[in-house]
Amino acid sequence: MLAVVSGDLTRIRRVPEIAPSLRQALEQWTRVEPALLRVAADLERGRGPDEPFPWTQACACLPRAFQFVDGSAYLAHVERVRRARGVEMPPSFRVDPLMYQAVSDRFLGPQEPVPVADESFGIDLEAEVGVIVDDVPMGVRPTAAESHIRLITLINDLSLRHLIPGELAKGFGFLQGKPLSSLAALAVTPDEFGPDWREARVHGPLCSTVNGVRLGDPDAGVDMQFGFDELVAHAARTRPLGAGTLVGSGTVANQDPERGCSCLAERRVLEVLSGGEPRTPFLRFGDRIRIEMLDRGGRSIFGAIEQTIVRG
Amino acid sequence: MLAVVSGDLTRIRRVPEIAPSLRQALEQWTRVEPALLRVAADLERGRGPDEPFPWTQACACLPRAFQFVDGSAYLAHVERVRRARGVEMPPSFRVDPLMYQAVSDRFLGPQEPVPVADESFGIDLEAEVGVIVDDVPMGVRPTAAESHIRLITLINDLSLRHLIPGELAKGFGFLQGKPLSSLAALAVTPDEFGPDWREARVHGPLCSTVNGVRLGDPDAGVDMQFGFDELVAHAARTRPLGAGTLVGSGTVANQDPERGCSCLAERRVLEVLSGGEPRTPFLRFGDRIRIEMLDRGGRSIFGAIEQTIVRG
Repeated sequence: MLAVVSGDLTRIRRVPEIAPSLRQALEQWTRVEPALLRVAADLERGRGPDEPFPWTQACACLPRAFQFVDGSAYLAHVERVRRARGVEMPPSFRVDPLMYQAVSDRFLGPQEPVPVADESFGIDLEAEVGVIVDDVPMGVRPTAAESHIRLITLINDLSLRHLIPGELAKGFGFLQGKPLSSLAALAVTPDEFGPDWREARVHGPLCSTVNGVRLGDPDAGVDMQFGFDELVAHAARTRPLGAGTLVGSGTVANQDPERGCSCLAERRVLEVLSGGEPRTPFLRFGDRIRIEMLDRGGRSIFGAIEQTIVRG
Repeated sequence: MLAVVSGDLTRIRRVPEIAPSLRQALEQWTRVEPALLRVAADLERGRGPDEPFPWTQACACLPRAFQFVDGSAYLAHVERVRRARGVEMPPSFRVDPLMYQAVSDRFLGPQEPVPVADESFGIDLEAEVGVIVDDVPMGVRPTAAESHIRLITLINDLSLRHLIPGELAKGFGFLQGKPLSSLAALAVTPDEFGPDWREARVHGPLCSTVNGVRLGDPDAGVDMQFGFDELVAHAARTRPLGAGTLVGSGTVANQDPERGCSCLAERRVLEVLSGGEPRTPFLRFGDRIRIEMLDRGGRSIFGAIEQTIVRG
């Protein structure tokens, strides 16, 4: 059910009378946005009715979507992961975005366990930023694409590292190597970011932990080779994108290794580069991951993605 | 709107009271199937109310879906198309299905023009059979997968041949090389095929023409290396499939070259093999394609896909 959330993420108002779901709201965004903004303003002024945010019941901001295309706009990630597979990054990757068609018929919620059949698949998180668009015409230019970006959210794009080389070698993409992804509970309008949304990029650290230990906090606005305007235009080159399409940034990564990583595959490459063996194992059943972005005041923007890997 | 169609495809009954759309019917298939079967039986007995099939208004049986995964189960097609790209087919392709995540946020209707920005993209049809499943659990075995196959339809999986080599070289799949696909107006339950649905394969010729000239009529039940039971299980190895997922067969092709082709890329390879140059051009604006499957009595099973390529 669609709900508007207060800026401090403590209170919500359910708004079934505006649209039954976020997906359906996106299909008529220009019509429903004013009503949603009015409710948001009322919530900030403490004008009821409202209720506490039911965190434990929160599902993914989009429980499913008709489309998810995932870019790979942080070349530090591309270089490191390819190095792990023993392949070079072609220079064309600096001008031509990498992107794949991803699974979207279900997104796990931010607190939902992640079921995997076998630990030997090489289970890895990937912390990403994603944007959700309204209807985008085929052949849209990047300058026009930005106006179609209506919402921003966080993605945990789960990867099965030991299945991916075999899948990619077949030539048709990731398929079995990319099971269901997870989304944050909240999708946020770009204006909420103020100056931290510019050049179609979200600026600010994306913090990931595994079992409570910092994995990294790279800045999503740094070293992003292609803005979301360019990623949306790339996706729409030969076809329109339906309202509610999710476009992912790819795993957030900075060139500065001090900022850490947003996935374990990269950390393992950095371990090899700085002295020998990969020491960090991939995820095991029972491992807990957490992905969150805080604003300049230290408040959570989307709510955290906090998940446990379980035998599925 | 959901409608039940008479066996001779001349009459329909709209059934919004059973489910608003085919997608929503699939989400509760075991509940709604008996009601749909009763309407179908009434239609066959001439018990009204009914109305003529409004062919020119028919949209795709699924105007959109939360998922489309497309296999490539006819190895004659795989071998020929790879030969055109100058690459060999690995022996593992005989035991491990090829499959990719495809675009599903919109399917063109059976009589809808196909918009393409540029003829130089190398526009090609691909005639396929597709099955639509209800909820499939992760890790399902092929023997259990067949029971989830609820409906069968036809797909025109449009391909942009000159964009595909560049996209596949990037390693992440087809993306820009595969624009919107088209579906037949009708989705048909497997029992309608009688003995021609066996071993999770549809048996019978799939007829394709370009500008009224025969392209081919290979038998969809011959040389299909993997049945739909195996394709569904392959798609579900690391994740569940939501109700309404479309699973494509890949371009139907027989080893016997006399049966012709279901795409132009294959015909061009056969022309090269039988004496030199590819003579058949890819599709141009204004070209008309037609894809249809007839039953043993010569009646159209799904209605024809009849489309014109237009500048988009």
